[in-house]
Amino acid sequence: MSTEEKIKQYISNNRDHYIDLLREWVQHPTRSGQEYDLQKKIAERLENSGLDVDFWEPDRRELEDHPAFTSPRKDFKDSPNVVGTLKGSGGGHSLILNGHIDVVPEGDLEQWEDDPFSGAVKDGKMFGRGTTDMKGGNLALLIALEAIVEMDITLKGDLIFQSVIEEESGGAGTLAAIKRGYKADAALIPEPTQMKIIPKQQGSMWFRVTVRGISAHAGTRFEGISALEKSWKVYDTLMALENQRNIRLQDPLFKNMTIPIPINVGTIQGGSWPSSVPSKVVMEGRYGIGPDETIEEAKAELEQSLHRLQQYDDFFKQHPVDVEWFGANWIPGSVDLSHPLLGILQDQYESSQHEEPVIQASNWGTDGGMLTQYADTPAIVFGPGTTKMAHFPNECIELDNIFEIAEIFFHSIIEWCEKED
Amino acid sequence: MSTEEKIKQYISNNRDHYIDLLREWVQHPTRSGQEYDLQKKIAERLENSGLDVDFWEPDRRELEDHPAFTSPRKDFKDSPNVVGTLKGSGGGHSLILNGHIDVVPEGDLEQWEDDPFSGAVKDGKMFGRGTTDMKGGNLALLIALEAIVEMDITLKGDLIFQSVIEEESGGAGTLAAIKRGYKADAALIPEPTQMKIIPKQQGSMWFRVTVRGISAHAGTRFEGISALEKSWKVYDTLMALENQRNIRLQDPLFKNMTIPIPINVGTIQGGSWPSSVPSKVVMEGRYGIGPDETIEEAKAELEQSLHRLQQYDDFFKQHPVDVEWFGANWIPGSVDLSHPLLGILQDQYESSQHEEPVIQASNWGTDGGMLTQYADTPAIVFGPGTTKMAHFPNECIELDNIFEIAEIFFHSIIEWCEKED
Repeated sequence: MSTEEKIKQYISNNRDHYIDLLREWVQHPTRSGQEYDLQKKIAERLENSGLDVDFWEPDRRELEDHPAFTSPRKDFKDSPNVVGTLKGSGGGHSLILNGHIDVVPEGDLEQWEDDPFSGAVKDGKMFGRGTTDMKGGNLALLIALEAIVEMDITLKGDLIFQSVIEEESGGAGTLAAIKRGYKADAALIPEPTQMKIIPKQQGSMWFRVTVRGISAHAGTRFEGISALEKSWKVYDTLMALENQRNIRLQDPLFKNMTIPIPINVGTIQGGSWPSSVPSKVVMEGRYGIGPDETIEEAKAELEQSLHRLQQYDDFFKQHPVDVEWFGANWIPGSVDLSHPLLGILQDQYESSQHEEPVIQASNWGTDGGMLTQYADTPAIVFGPGTTKMAHFPNECIELDNIFEIAEIFFHSIIEWCEKED
Repeated sequence: MSTEEKIKQYISNNRDHYIDLLREWVQHPTRSGQEYDLQKKIAERLENSGLDVDFWEPDRRELEDHPAFTSPRKDFKDSPNVVGTLKGSGGGHSLILNGHIDVVPEGDLEQWEDDPFSGAVKDGKMFGRGTTDMKGGNLALLIALEAIVEMDITLKGDLIFQSVIEEESGGAGTLAAIKRGYKADAALIPEPTQMKIIPKQQGSMWFRVTVRGISAHAGTRFEGISALEKSWKVYDTLMALENQRNIRLQDPLFKNMTIPIPINVGTIQGGSWPSSVPSKVVMEGRYGIGPDETIEEAKAELEQSLHRLQQYDDFFKQHPVDVEWFGANWIPGSVDLSHPLLGILQDQYESSQHEEPVIQASNWGTDGGMLTQYADTPAIVFGPGTTKMAHFPNECIELDNIFEIAEIFFHSIIEWCEKED
């Protein structure tokens, strides 16, 4: 039997088992801080497959100094990372298989048709928080890995399976694995891409802009200056900046995207009394960062744009707009289009799906940016599941896609890491 | 001795006494709900002068149905109104002397140089919450009244002195006096006008505008519609409406005012997450109402303007802007420029001050609108004290102005009510 036939048979024989396994994973509500039990089970399973398993709770103090560190947590107690290494025989390329185990909160229960952690299957889809983002993708990696072990294939390069915490809160789990020394010649991250291949991903960060005014009584509002009217000007400036940044972004991988790197103002709050001219308005938003720019460059550009308002308006000179960067940031990532892993994934996709894959940049970030920028490990994102489902009520995943992509992973790993004859 | 000389002497003889009295009044912190003690003292003083005194706690249930009623209070326990009537001998015109006893809260104590209820005198000014708004004005009325009594002057028309509660919260005190049957041929209200004579006053009301959008993730913000961007459009529409309303307002009494009837957006709040397109923005503001329009006409005009947005933008057709009217409203008021009391005040001002008075419309409302519109009692506002001081820390009043205006009141009352020979 050819390897092609063997993997098809392996998947067909074990399909029900893996669906049960995914349901078990989904039934663990691995919100931030609640990952322990499932991580323990995953560690045991990797050990049973003969991998060297590393299971540890990251130490916040060791991460805090890193420029990419952000986390709302005080410590990572009960939130272990799991890394299982299938040591290669030597030669070949090493590969990190990275997926996060944490899920976002289920949100408003009334919007769910079923228990958010049911793992119920209907019409070929499994439902539940984390099915698409990203336990389905993690399962596809595990299937490929276990098939390699089961078929007694010996890889030349190391295969490093990572089940990490905290991707949804800024990536402290992957950062902890990087700080612990894990790196490789490339990484594969099966975040939900609807089976598109994503070598470039947008980063993002949160900003807070404070705009000042001068208060006055509403009846003589002309004696004051409305921070709200000044905010319109600030908003227009942000939109003009968004336009300039997207004109400049000539990347063909973004060509089908309406606004590749958007600037979104998500909240506004200002004034304290209907009968007073508002003297302060605060806007908070998300700033999209191009795959090929640094966080520092992007920050400077936004700050300069808003500070240039002072050239047009003396009021801004006397009352400059404050810009703060707060909360998490997601590091952008860019892998060269000539990277051989990209070619491998492309070819394997075509053989398996009998059509060309869509290769595209993403308008969201993953832990891949951190691996690419800070661990010298070019990361490609490619997974089952769809972004549209992620973070929403009634999240679900097409089960077929998981098995299709597992097969592509299997072949791609063997081609990238190379196997002993 | 002529009446002119007599009143001058009366004031000169009693100046220190009245300054002490004002200090005592200011030392009563008559915030809403805390008026009892001072009202009791005022009632006793009016009784001692021989007036018929009416002292009662308004019954909210009797007021609630009135179109002008607004109040944040459940009842008016411990907040009595005081009305003292100096019955006329018959013939002549009757006159209401109306002043409110309630003061606004003192606000941030750190911004006061002294105790806000000290009544301290420095450089000819008395300091304290309520000095200018409007216990100084009330005192001027009382001086004129007591001088008339003291000099044994018999008026033909009734003179009705009202010390009312709740002007600062929407006028329930004056409304209660109206419901109790008090009306007259005219009313005089010595709110702080800096000795300008105000026959027309702006009304105002509070509005709340809710603007909708469609949420989306910030990374694909073009899939949503920002309620914030739609709010800009709503704001522009309000400003265009303000412009139209002020162009239309051809009243010469407003000629020196930059924006006679302003529309002020005082607060804005929208969105809930920096990485989401905001789906709702709420703006609250104050809507200035012209002296010659009704609350109903003014409301309809604002509502129509915002609903017309639907003609320009299909999104507004599907997601109309909500307009609510909330909180207190202040009824506008307009007294005809040919009203004889206006002429009397003008002449008496000229005789006393040796210059023409400024006759102007106001950009704020008083209880006068209610007297004019709902009690058929044309009310003119004319007082010592300045609006700029009202509601602010370190509120104060020029003591000289109180005595100057008391003299003008004295002569005007005698001329309006007429005296027996």
